[in-house]
Amino acid sequence: MIRVTVWNEYLHEINQPEVAAIYPDGIHGCIKAFLEANPEITVKTATLDMENHGLTEEILNETDVLIWWGHMAHDKVSDETAQLVQKHVLAGMGLVALHSAHHSKPMKLLMGTTLNLKWRHGDRERVWCINPSHPIAKGIPEQFVLEKEEMYGEPFDIPEPDETVFMGWFAGGEVFRSGVTFRRGKGRIFYFQPGHEEYPIYHDKNVQRVIENAVFWACGNSERMEIICENPEPLEK
Amino acid sequence: MIRVTVWNEYLHEINQPEVAAIYPDGIHGCIKAFLEANPEITVKTATLDMENHGLTEEILNETDVLIWWGHMAHDKVSDETAQLVQKHVLAGMGLVALHSAHHSKPMKLLMGTTLNLKWRHGDRERVWCINPSHPIAKGIPEQFVLEKEEMYGEPFDIPEPDETVFMGWFAGGEVFRSGVTFRRGKGRIFYFQPGHEEYPIYHDKNVQRVIENAVFWACGNSERMEIICENPEPLEK
Amino acid sequence: MIRVTVWNEYLHEINQPEVAAIYPDGIHGCIKAFLEANPEITVKTATLDMENHGLTEEILNETDVLIWWGHMAHDKVSDETAQLVQKHVLAGMGLVALHSAHHSKPMKLLMGTTLNLKWRHGDRERVWCINPSHPIAKGIPEQFVLEKEEMYGEPFDIPEPDETVFMGWFAGGEVFRSGVTFRRGKGRIFYFQPGHEEYPIYHDKNVQRVIENAVFWACGNSERMEIICENPEPLEK
Amino acid sequence: MIRVTVWNEYLHEINQPEVAAIYPDGIHGCIKAFLEANPEITVKTATLDMENHGLTEEILNETDVLIWWGHMAHDKVSDETAQLVQKHVLAGMGLVALHSAHHSKPMKLLMGTTLNLKWRHGDRERVWCINPSHPIAKGIPEQFVLEKEEMYGEPFDIPEPDETVFMGWFAGGEVFRSGVTFRRGKGRIFYFQPGHEEYPIYHDKNVQRVIENAVFWACGNSERMEIICENPEPLEK
Repeated sequence: MIRVTVWNEYLHEINQPEVAAIYPDGIHGCIKAFLEANPEITVKTATLDMENHGLTEEILNETDVLIWWGHMAHDKVSDETAQLVQKHVLAGMGLVALHSAHHSKPMKLLMGTTLNLKWRHGDRERVWCINPSHPIAKGIPEQFVLEKEEMYGEPFDIPEPDETVFMGWFAGGEVFRSGVTFRRGKGRIFYFQPGHEEYPIYHDKNVQRVIENAVFWACGNSERMEIICENPEPLEK
Repeated sequence: MIRVTVWNEYLHEINQPEVAAIYPDGIHGCIKAFLEANPEITVKTATLDMENHGLTEEILNETDVLIWWGHMAHDKVSDETAQLVQKHVLAGMGLVALHSAHHSKPMKLLMGTTLNLKWRHGDRERVWCINPSHPIAKGIPEQFVLEKEEMYGEPFDIPEPDETVFMGWFAGGEVFRSGVTFRRGKGRIFYFQPGHEEYPIYHDKNVQRVIENAVFWACGNSERMEIICENPEPLEK
Repeated sequence: MIRVTVWNEYLHEINQPEVAAIYPDGIHGCIKAFLEANPEITVKTATLDMENHGLTEEILNETDVLIWWGHMAHDKVSDETAQLVQKHVLAGMGLVALHSAHHSKPMKLLMGTTLNLKWRHGDRERVWCINPSHPIAKGIPEQFVLEKEEMYGEPFDIPEPDETVFMGWFAGGEVFRSGVTFRRGKGRIFYFQPGHEEYPIYHDKNVQRVIENAVFWACGNSERMEIICENPEPLEK
Repeated sequence: MIRVTVWNEYLHEINQPEVAAIYPDGIHGCIKAFLEANPEITVKTATLDMENHGLTEEILNETDVLIWWGHMAHDKVSDETAQLVQKHVLAGMGLVALHSAHHSKPMKLLMGTTLNLKWRHGDRERVWCINPSHPIAKGIPEQFVLEKEEMYGEPFDIPEPDETVFMGWFAGGEVFRSGVTFRRGKGRIFYFQPGHEEYPIYHDKNVQRVIENAVFWACGNSERMEIICENPEPLEK
């Protein structure tokens, strides 16, 4: 059984009726629902407004994979929580960062770059799978269309990814590395670009399948364990 | 002309006579001297005790490559200075991080991992060049010996490097990725393990050559320029 | 159920009594035995002397992971068989190349480099795990010793690996990237250095566990499918 | 002085008047002309119809960077010549493979994959620079348009590149990794997608600048030297 925690900023859904109409239970509720259709996955949720943003040492200790969605309130997340997430990823927790989570505090801490990019609302995207044998691509067609999506465009200021799984084509003329993987410490990180709140992206079957695959991939094989500093005696004399 | 700034914590040389005997002008003074033997390089130095640790916006604007040596006082470097260094690397400044600078604040910000490792004083190292056509390996023999060096051992908690140039063999039984490269933003980073303060490592001709090569490599082709967020009009209609 | 085929040159065991004493059923027989202790794995074997070296289109179609051991007769393997193996790896078959298989025809075809290296009989090796959360490292200690092993030393002429999982330390002074991964096409490749025929390497529990882990890792998620050339109509008008 | 050899199949220009009209001196003649405008570069050319296709041991020994253009007659290049090119790249010669050279014999030998892809004549491409501080991107704008170009589309069956420098957006809906680097042995390889023979791609100033930059980058620092197998005495006793 894989234990997932979905973290959501949960502000757009409260303040914008048109977003609430798409996600009546919040983006986290939508993700929880489609993931729990898989009997091997169990999901908890946490939001910005909860105490400690709903992410304590205890909760993360019981999280195999953390999914993160945030957008307009990245700076409202405390440094302590961001560092706690970073610590758990380095010790083996998987992280799936969705859409504008590229600019979230945990991603900035883990990547070390600005993660800046181009953006524009109301574009149309073709998501191309360029690494069809990657576990995250299982069951995904060669390409699929998101009729309405926010354009995210290159140059995208990330470290050279370990693997590029998806690339996005936008009708407005831009391209983007839409699905990329990174290992940091003992943890596996997948960044996936689709998911602007004003469009029903997380109701798309292909997007759902990618996120479900990413949960299995990011879960990895690792019990939580930090790589520590040691001052050992010589093994050889 | 490449403009190098050598930053040194400069504490061991002041407080430990045996270190001062090896580096009467400080580690920074030693590095400055051998680099300036190359007429294409000009060197400034900066130390922890200076105002703003000697690293202001102005000084970094005039720095093509920053070399960093620190050990016992990483936490005395202000967060502001560490973030300033990070910003300049991402905008194109080269960074050569030496020895215990793996745990410096700028490296932690740029790598996102713990950079933890094993260590032990008084070992003997063979530095192997595993990527002999890399610009940083120019003129370096297949392997060379440091008769006395601090052991740094795996697992070394770094992101998968872009390139591994050197690997260290230690008499006590450990191995280490001793010279590794990373690109972050527009900047190039080289981490090089040799350089414990109690041994005359920076007087070694091969070590000097590696650092000189790294300066030319890290300098790259880039004027300083940040990758920014933009919200452009569509290119296609 | 994972279907493994173990290919072995099977010459040392026939011609050298001291090797036959270690591997009375051949190296392939030894590997088959310890892999089949896992009920999720089923193993066939094939050897150089068989018709088509025991590797036909049909047999490879029913192989999820091919394990390859060869040494003195690489050139006796036909080009046709080597190309058939390459084709199946690119279409999704896993490949675990052991020890001197670095110089086998399939590996040369898949890597594109010379795969040259240093070597010396009768050394002692410490195998270090530098990527402890990698699936291939599951259950493997931080380091383990092979009391007698052939030294393989850097520089090792391989493409920059996707991941370095193990590094070898040799008593004679050399280092080596002892366990490295590559993806080629839809297939996953793991090269693992231990396994000189004169020493009982494949009786070592850690070595066995690495190979078993590699079988699960290399098996991946992919049905066999070639990436083909296509000349499609435009998706957009 | 960098010594470049431009190899061209040189068939389209002879057999198709509309191609001859674009490249009256052949594609190789066009590339030679714009490269030699740089006084640090000297260029020789070689074509399929010459003895040994114009590529002998002597000529390659005096070549720092080989540029390759081929399309309809890949199989007319002898295996001996292809292997000679491979050997020289592994020993340090740079290789710039243009457009349909992805399917050339030397590239297949060096990459180990099928290099298959999608294609369609008469599309429009935007070439995006996603790694703006890479030496090959020097002086290149964020994106530029090729009004008429052959579409090359993902999935592109190449090994994970060391670096992705350019990505292509096509009006017909496809994306492509249009500029990618690989190190193999001591040699540096740059693959660059633009260059269909029916359109005046090599007259484009940005394309010319990319190829010129690639020549400087691929030239590297290396004298020709093969990585060989050795059987050394132990360094340690």
